[in-house]
Amino acid sequence: MTRVLILGGGGMVGQKLATKIAKDGLLAETAPEVTLFDLGFPQNAAPAHAQITGNVTDDTIIRNLAAQQFDVIFHLASVVSGEAEQDFDKGYAVNLSPTLTLLDGLRTAHLKSGGTYRPRLVFTSSIAVFGGPYPDKITDEFFISPQTSYGAQKAMCEVLIQDYSRKGFIDGLSLRLPTICVRPGKPNLAASSFFSGIIREPLMGKEAILPVPDTVRHWHASPRSAAGFLTHAAALNTTGLENHRALNLPGVSCTVAEQIEALRDIAGQDVVNLIKPQSDAFITKIVQGWPRDFDPVRAKSLGFRSETSFSDIIKVFIEDELH
Amino acid sequence: MTRVLILGGGGMVGQKLATKIAKDGLLAETAPEVTLFDLGFPQNAAPAHAQITGNVTDDTIIRNLAAQQFDVIFHLASVVSGEAEQDFDKGYAVNLSPTLTLLDGLRTAHLKSGGTYRPRLVFTSSIAVFGGPYPDKITDEFFISPQTSYGAQKAMCEVLIQDYSRKGFIDGLSLRLPTICVRPGKPNLAASSFFSGIIREPLMGKEAILPVPDTVRHWHASPRSAAGFLTHAAALNTTGLENHRALNLPGVSCTVAEQIEALRDIAGQDVVNLIKPQSDAFITKIVQGWPRDFDPVRAKSLGFRSETSFSDIIKVFIEDELH
Repeated sequence: MTRVLILGGGGMVGQKLATKIAKDGLLAETAPEVTLFDLGFPQNAAPAHAQITGNVTDDTIIRNLAAQQFDVIFHLASVVSGEAEQDFDKGYAVNLSPTLTLLDGLRTAHLKSGGTYRPRLVFTSSIAVFGGPYPDKITDEFFISPQTSYGAQKAMCEVLIQDYSRKGFIDGLSLRLPTICVRPGKPNLAASSFFSGIIREPLMGKEAILPVPDTVRHWHASPRSAAGFLTHAAALNTTGLENHRALNLPGVSCTVAEQIEALRDIAGQDVVNLIKPQSDAFITKIVQGWPRDFDPVRAKSLGFRSETSFSDIIKVFIEDELH
Repeated sequence: MTRVLILGGGGMVGQKLATKIAKDGLLAETAPEVTLFDLGFPQNAAPAHAQITGNVTDDTIIRNLAAQQFDVIFHLASVVSGEAEQDFDKGYAVNLSPTLTLLDGLRTAHLKSGGTYRPRLVFTSSIAVFGGPYPDKITDEFFISPQTSYGAQKAMCEVLIQDYSRKGFIDGLSLRLPTICVRPGKPNLAASSFFSGIIREPLMGKEAILPVPDTVRHWHASPRSAAGFLTHAAALNTTGLENHRALNLPGVSCTVAEQIEALRDIAGQDVVNLIKPQSDAFITKIVQGWPRDFDPVRAKSLGFRSETSFSDIIKVFIEDELH
């Protein structure tokens, strides 16, 4: 029986992942045993063997989970970019310290097992590990230079996961997710929240604030793709990745104007009229420091796949959330 | 009165630095007040206002030091590469955790001061943050990919120092030192120790083991240059570095065969005959993962200077240590 732990399993991506595993299985097993861990869970939550409510900042809980020898651990638990930037202590407490604790716990389990236990760890990193100035397309070997605390925390976790993997304690991968769009549900504190908001809210007949100029170019993939990236990573043969376990994933590069154009094509001008430009200097400053486009050769060659147009991203939202 | 703290002030580079500051001053001040902190100090130690004996892993001590509002803090305290690779826990305990504690303490002091206290922090990072395969010359924007725990720990500290500096809590710089050569004193546990040993020991009439093939190419600077890098960094105008505070420093790229050739030119064949090849797979594996050559454009444009030939490096050793 494959046993799976999803830290951050109550969040949007965690729930998509749990739902996908329940539907498609994982590692060629149709019904793996999935444990979700998060601060809380939505009503009508994804099916799971167990839901555990707790905080990743609780070292005792994380050490207990690490001792349970899950075969695959997805580590998605994080505070988002805007929150980590505004609450420095909380950002480090949630986005760095629990990863240190988790890895130390997994190493302890590895050593206790006499070296036989070596779990697959799939960590959601971010394109926020990069900093400008950027080339037109960021290559797989572009240097990390975070411009936010969130990006710094993700970068440090990547380095840790690389080192613990190199030593053989775990078999880890860090996925530098594109901005996930269109997110269902409510706006959140992520500086990137509006990228989803300007599509989701108008499609549901509501106004949405656009806090940045429509010339802003950014890098997107759907929640469906995010779940696909994660399950693909869980099953990936990591031989040959030894020294380079953080992957830039595929996505769609487009400007906000192109996002809006795709929305107009699909839903019409009346829907687009619900987008209200209202400049926000704080968000604009963060977002303008972010990457705009990638050439993710390695991840594509490893079989990671995303949408190829923003229209497809909107259609995924309509199919998965509005039907 | 400029107040200076040197963490790792009892080590070889720390002592060179303290001696240089006592001789040349710092920040245009002829007699700054220098506090040295280390596990212990050599007899005939460099002049200092205070020597404090302690361990950087002691959080209370580090927090107390951080609260004392030193103007310049040099953070050199570290276990070396070979030791961090063989003792995983000790490597993280010494090379990562104290930096987290120090930065948190400096931020607390910054906040307590109402934002006026913002110390210059100069951290000794390493070219071990990089991993192969390498280009012929590593550029300033080559990506980090550590192949040792030591390199991973240094990389994480760089990211932390960048983030704390970006937030304005400190004004930090990370110096990716070349391998410091020729080190005086005894061989140490660094995998790089032999680079010095094959010069130092023969010049003192002793045999030295060469554990790697003489085709190994590596990147060197003298202890005198190291002290110069550090004092230069303490005085550097960091405006314009905001997003890129880890610097590849200048050095000398040469093979072990070229090192030996330079030794022969200076000291003769009888001295060279004291070098005894004796292959060591553990050291060879670590060293072959290290960088061989750099094109450190940014550091040179910022005024950092090193020797330009290995002969000069040997001459510095003879002048500074054997006279």
